Amino acid sequence: MMDVAREAGVSRAAVSKVIRDAYGVSPDMRKRVESAIERLGYRPSVAARAIRGSSFTIGFELHEIENPALSRILRGAAEGIEGTGYRLVIAPGDPEGQHAIDALVDLRVDGLVAIAPRATPAWLENLASRIPLVLVSRHDPSVNYDTVAGGDDEGARLVMRHLFDLGHRSIAHLTRSEEATAQEGGALAVRLGAYLDEMARNGRESRIQVLRTLSTSDAYHATVGLLDSADPPTALFASHDDLAFEVLRAVRERGLDASDLSVVGYDNVRFASHPGLSLTTVDQSGDDLGRRAVRLLLERINGRTAAKHEETELRLVVRGSTAPPRR
Amino acid sequence: MMDVAREAGVSRAAVSKVIRDAYGVSPDMRKRVESAIERLGYRPSVAARAIRGSSFTIGFELHEIENPALSRILRGAAEGIEGTGYRLVIAPGDPEGQHAIDALVDLRVDGLVAIAPRATPAWLENLASRIPLVLVSRHDPSVNYDTVAGGDDEGARLVMRHLFDLGHRSIAHLTRSEEATAQEGGALAVRLGAYLDEMARNGRESRIQVLRTLSTSDAYHATVGLLDSADPPTALFASHDDLAFEVLRAVRERGLDASDLSVVGYDNVRFASHPGLSLTTVDQSGDDLGRRAVRLLLERINGRTAAKHEETELRLVVRGSTAPPRR
Repeated sequence: MMDVAREAGVSRAAVSKVIRDAYGVSPDMRKRVESAIERLGYRPSVAARAIRGSSFTIGFELHEIENPALSRILRGAAEGIEGTGYRLVIAPGDPEGQHAIDALVDLRVDGLVAIAPRATPAWLENLASRIPLVLVSRHDPSVNYDTVAGGDDEGARLVMRHLFDLGHRSIAHLTRSEEATAQEGGALAVRLGAYLDEMARNGRESRIQVLRTLSTSDAYHATVGLLDSADPPTALFASHDDLAFEVLRAVRERGLDASDLSVVGYDNVRFASHPGLSLTTVDQSGDDLGRRAVRLLLERINGRTAAKHEETELRLVVRGSTAPPRR
Repeated sequence: MMDVAREAGVSRAAVSKVIRDAYGVSPDMRKRVESAIERLGYRPSVAARAIRGSSFTIGFELHEIENPALSRILRGAAEGIEGTGYRLVIAPGDPEGQHAIDALVDLRVDGLVAIAPRATPAWLENLASRIPLVLVSRHDPSVNYDTVAGGDDEGARLVMRHLFDLGHRSIAHLTRSEEATAQEGGALAVRLGAYLDEMARNGRESRIQVLRTLSTSDAYHATVGLLDSADPPTALFASHDDLAFEVLRAVRERGLDASDLSVVGYDNVRFASHPGLSLTTVDQSGDDLGRRAVRLLLERINGRTAAKHEETELRLVVRGSTAPPRR
């Protein structure tokens, strides 16, 4: 701002006034400052633009930076923002998502796309009263924010029916921590609910077995434990492809295959189709989740206030990691 | 700010003055405003903090959001920033990295970690005169910014010697676009140079074959073309694990194995050790690249101005994707 003031031959306060579009700037003053800004190639910083009202930046809260399912959503968001004049910044973070969201709000982004699987609706409603907000992979009803999700209930039931159709009767479910499935309406909670319900409908309550992992490497160790147990299941439904790959790691290391333990994931990330992995999984159109989230957010930034809920297309992709049980 | 002003019973201008730490604020006024801020749980936004001098945020330019090698560097950076009071925001972007870097500078981050493989040293020196800057995976000398890289020359030579030792004489190199290897001192340029030099040293100039890809799926199609060619190589050195996995996809789909086409990657991402992929690769301690980058950047933010260059540890990890050639 000092450089611009010097170039324009005015005070720094005058430059600030022009940038802030403040009252009491003469047309001549405005012209001098704007010409100086152009000559110097000065980009009014977001600090200044934020004072005027917009940073033309959208924030994306992404709690697991190495989860390829989330990368797929992010790729869709990056595609969706192209040509809109807005830019995307991502805050990685804590499972609650709150610190990451705080960081983005502090940077004065114009709106937020968040996954934040553990954030409560009450906290989100409060946040959404201050900034345009779209939640990804949530099914809970909302007043001040939009949600976009895959059909998690239907997807999980497709998985379970595929396994029952193959002849499996003892099916385990591998998911995240208790906290990660505690939030009603969250994707993982809905998938877990569908697993439990399908087991009950098929008279297999006694074989319900829910394994929980804190990290991806935990999924490997949990599977090793499972394979060593007295009466292991013949199939396992993992709540993310990333977990399923670690299950397959343990299965393959023992020289076992899909007739010993059939494995299903969720998300159809790029590696799922690799012949070395060949994972049966649900494709919930992850990129479309990201694209829709950005579109909904821009609608909100442009004035829409009524909440919208959208769902992406869904299909089961059957590959080599599932087969009829040997036993 | 209006809420704080109302709570404190002062003008909005007074609140602004306290936040900006401006001249002429009485101790009583400061106390009233600060108590109001505390009562309301108001976080002075970065717009305000940027005026005071710091956003306590570090920006990370990451041009390929789905490349697991870069995710590994990012994980290291996220670990390195823990407990420092700083936060990380990531801008995904264009291969030049310039738009992503602009976005971060506009948001008033306190410093930048960048990969930006196509940015020229001149452009980077200019950027670094305005903001603390650390470049990852660059070997070019610098005045105003730091660099941290793996030993790319040594790593690529380890790969080539391993393949020559196995008996391969016709070895192709798969890398990115011309632009991506044009920048002297860039990791991919250094790996390509080592490949060319080792082929020449071993009298195999006539078998030099450099394949280039614009996208990961290109790597698959390039390999299909290679396998269909009249006199295909017996080994392929890919400049990233992510490319190598797509090469393996094409090899496995044809029912071929490492004696038909041995494949080596670079980075030792998590999937490389999966029994379904079992990729020979170079581990350049990607997480340590990210951790060191953050440490160097915080040193710069705290006043260091002399440039530093650091290198991470390196090792070749031999797995099932390489074997002596069948022919």
